[in-house]
Amino acid sequence: MTIRIGIIGAGPSGLAQLRAFESALSRSKHDVELVCFEKRSNWGGLWNYSWRTGLDEHGEPVHGSMYRYLWSNGPKEALEFADYSFDQHFGRPIPSYPPRAVLFDYIQGRMERNNLRQYIRFNTVTRWVNFDENTQTFEVAVEDLSKQHTYTETFDYLVVATGHFSTPHVPYFKGLDTFPGAVMHAHDFRGADQFKGKDLLLVGGSYSAEDIGVQCYKHGARSVTISYRSAPLGFKWPQGIREVPLVTRFEGKTAHFQDGTHKNVDAVVLCTGYQHKYPFLPEELRLKSHNRLYPRGLYKGVVWKNNPRLFYLGMQDQYYTFNMFDAQAWYTRDIMLGHTALPDMAGMKADIQDWGRREDAVDNSCDAVDFQTAYVRDLMDRTDYPGFEAEQVAELLKQWLRDKQESILTYRDKPFRSVVTGTMAPVHHTAWIDELDDSLERFLDPHINQDNEVNATL
Amino acid sequence: MTIRIGIIGAGPSGLAQLRAFESALSRSKHDVELVCFEKRSNWGGLWNYSWRTGLDEHGEPVHGSMYRYLWSNGPKEALEFADYSFDQHFGRPIPSYPPRAVLFDYIQGRMERNNLRQYIRFNTVTRWVNFDENTQTFEVAVEDLSKQHTYTETFDYLVVATGHFSTPHVPYFKGLDTFPGAVMHAHDFRGADQFKGKDLLLVGGSYSAEDIGVQCYKHGARSVTISYRSAPLGFKWPQGIREVPLVTRFEGKTAHFQDGTHKNVDAVVLCTGYQHKYPFLPEELRLKSHNRLYPRGLYKGVVWKNNPRLFYLGMQDQYYTFNMFDAQAWYTRDIMLGHTALPDMAGMKADIQDWGRREDAVDNSCDAVDFQTAYVRDLMDRTDYPGFEAEQVAELLKQWLRDKQESILTYRDKPFRSVVTGTMAPVHHTAWIDELDDSLERFLDPHINQDNEVNATL
Repeated sequence: MTIRIGIIGAGPSGLAQLRAFESALSRSKHDVELVCFEKRSNWGGLWNYSWRTGLDEHGEPVHGSMYRYLWSNGPKEALEFADYSFDQHFGRPIPSYPPRAVLFDYIQGRMERNNLRQYIRFNTVTRWVNFDENTQTFEVAVEDLSKQHTYTETFDYLVVATGHFSTPHVPYFKGLDTFPGAVMHAHDFRGADQFKGKDLLLVGGSYSAEDIGVQCYKHGARSVTISYRSAPLGFKWPQGIREVPLVTRFEGKTAHFQDGTHKNVDAVVLCTGYQHKYPFLPEELRLKSHNRLYPRGLYKGVVWKNNPRLFYLGMQDQYYTFNMFDAQAWYTRDIMLGHTALPDMAGMKADIQDWGRREDAVDNSCDAVDFQTAYVRDLMDRTDYPGFEAEQVAELLKQWLRDKQESILTYRDKPFRSVVTGTMAPVHHTAWIDELDDSLERFLDPHINQDNEVNATL
Repeated sequence: MTIRIGIIGAGPSGLAQLRAFESALSRSKHDVELVCFEKRSNWGGLWNYSWRTGLDEHGEPVHGSMYRYLWSNGPKEALEFADYSFDQHFGRPIPSYPPRAVLFDYIQGRMERNNLRQYIRFNTVTRWVNFDENTQTFEVAVEDLSKQHTYTETFDYLVVATGHFSTPHVPYFKGLDTFPGAVMHAHDFRGADQFKGKDLLLVGGSYSAEDIGVQCYKHGARSVTISYRSAPLGFKWPQGIREVPLVTRFEGKTAHFQDGTHKNVDAVVLCTGYQHKYPFLPEELRLKSHNRLYPRGLYKGVVWKNNPRLFYLGMQDQYYTFNMFDAQAWYTRDIMLGHTALPDMAGMKADIQDWGRREDAVDNSCDAVDFQTAYVRDLMDRTDYPGFEAEQVAELLKQWLRDKQESILTYRDKPFRSVVTGTMAPVHHTAWIDELDDSLERFLDPHINQDNEVNATL
């Protein structure tokens, strides 16, 4: 009997799941039917950029949180697919910190090469999931947004791959409702242009504040003030960026901070994080978590303990990304194909508790890298995903952490060596701080030399 | 056996439905159970203002499309409840064009007076509806957002009262994705402040463009350019507002128009209308319509022809608002209580076609007023809703149309006579163009005289 597998979302995690199945199906016959529902008209998830904010052309929440001039904030060597290297995709070595369009191209390359678009129903949003205890199947109600056509399909297994960096967490601060300038969450930030010459306040103490801060600095904001809740990011900021404690209230365009200081600002971007949000799932199937390394309730970080026919991919706080999603997807695939057996409930609980204790012992970023390395290693050892030296990636990530501490404006200029191919990345033709064009064409242009001039041969 | 009635939304339409039932239940016993699901933490629908844009604190689409400094754009005498007059609520006559907070207070007053909060489950969003043909009941899956608790309830009748001015229609124009300033839909416009001193482009030719245009003019925009698709609004604009044909493309901050002209602008607000959007309904129950006087498929504008246990309130393009929702709600109530019989399918179809033909014959705004007057009259004659002279309201609406043609900046200063109480509205203490404070306290302050000075008695 055909096993029907539903996958919700065609971003990096959902695509990893398709690729994992395709890898198995290309080597031996399995009676499996794959259906991937993707809300948007193209794949790539967060990497599929949209200029839209709020609600999209169909009135659905905009998935994307990326912006113009977004460059990878970690080295590409830390996320490289073990079965599809950067060298293979681009045909030559490329620098370690590509802009968004280049990474999108890379993700897409693996999918096109393996003809995986056929499994995806685009413009199709999942509305509601019901699990039938009698038949042990999922009834999934979806809508084809282009036709407003709704229908229900039945699956033996369901994979939730909708990500957790799309639904903003937006706190209220007194006076924010009458702040006279632009107010937005980082989710709706689409580029630094509109803040040129402006005094900008960012509220938050994590990646969004860090990156939006340096992007706006780079693209000409007059000043960037970062207001943190618990701890400052603590980088060696250039003149023009500074950190202050949490905002307590706004009076007109004046932001007041916990240390008694204040600052007049023209705009506010709330870099206050994201919610895990699965509006299509009933409570008994729904992961409830904040952003953490080991969301509770998921055996091996992917199997919904209370119903092991349900899987979640990529729901961790992430040092590893694409390659971790791969390791997860290969593992869940093997469960669905019956190649890997799950322990009983007690066994799953004990394992979750064990990993939970290890997560609780994490004290700093280096610990977190080690934790996630061990997690990825554990998954890889259980599947035939082409192994990569995760321990080398860990060293690379720790170097990246040191590079950022050293210089938040130049860390993206450093090259790394691939753990997949051994290739050393070239230094990019233009220092990141000077590169205002984030197009793929410019990034890959072989005729620009490192003095940032077009070669004479042109 | 208890009749269970589900109502989705506690805005003006959903509240009208509650009030209609309460009116009947207070006079004779009916075995009816009412449950109203409201996504937000308070009632009022569009009139329940929020500073938020995009997604709300729970990650749900923000319902509100209203902004600071929003004043009624029609005289209050055209929307007055026949069973609860403005005089009754405020204890004295008030001017004809109140700001948002005053109308919210009025809506709320009727509900509180009748103790109707008890029927409403706040913070509860409707996820998915299923109609069971066997039992002829609706299974409604909802989520209590404050607890992420999901559950399903069963209803004999379902009333959809979620409005149709909450989901923006956002077209793309070439170059909009690289426009360097703020880009938003009118749905996300929250006030004119951030456009002070700016050159603003509004795209659209209806109420949103008209009102956001004059609001931004009033609050100090440097220029307002309104770009229309089919026809200009055609008001006598003051210096600083002008209309141009549709934008064809953007190049940087330059907008190019169909007539070959162009204009450099700092920000773009798309006043391009709203979508009917019912994501919680399967196709067979879902109204698909654009904004029109008589959406097809609804008998008497409210009964879902293909399943007359389902009702839609307030889904019309609107000249009449609160009082029309009342007439609709009293009528649907009588159907649900068995006081009014529906014709058979052929009869409903014929009636819809008849009204459809009348709608097709509407040629201008005055015709539209007459059409909707006849529609409201038809509904009122079928119920015990306290009658009001709809034909007098029609005259009032036509005067309002003339007033706007006469002067788009002063029409809000004119007083009207109530058709419910006969009371003549006073002229407001401050001309609208000069009134920068839209608070209820300021509007109702009895100590401000018409010279806009606080009385000496204070």
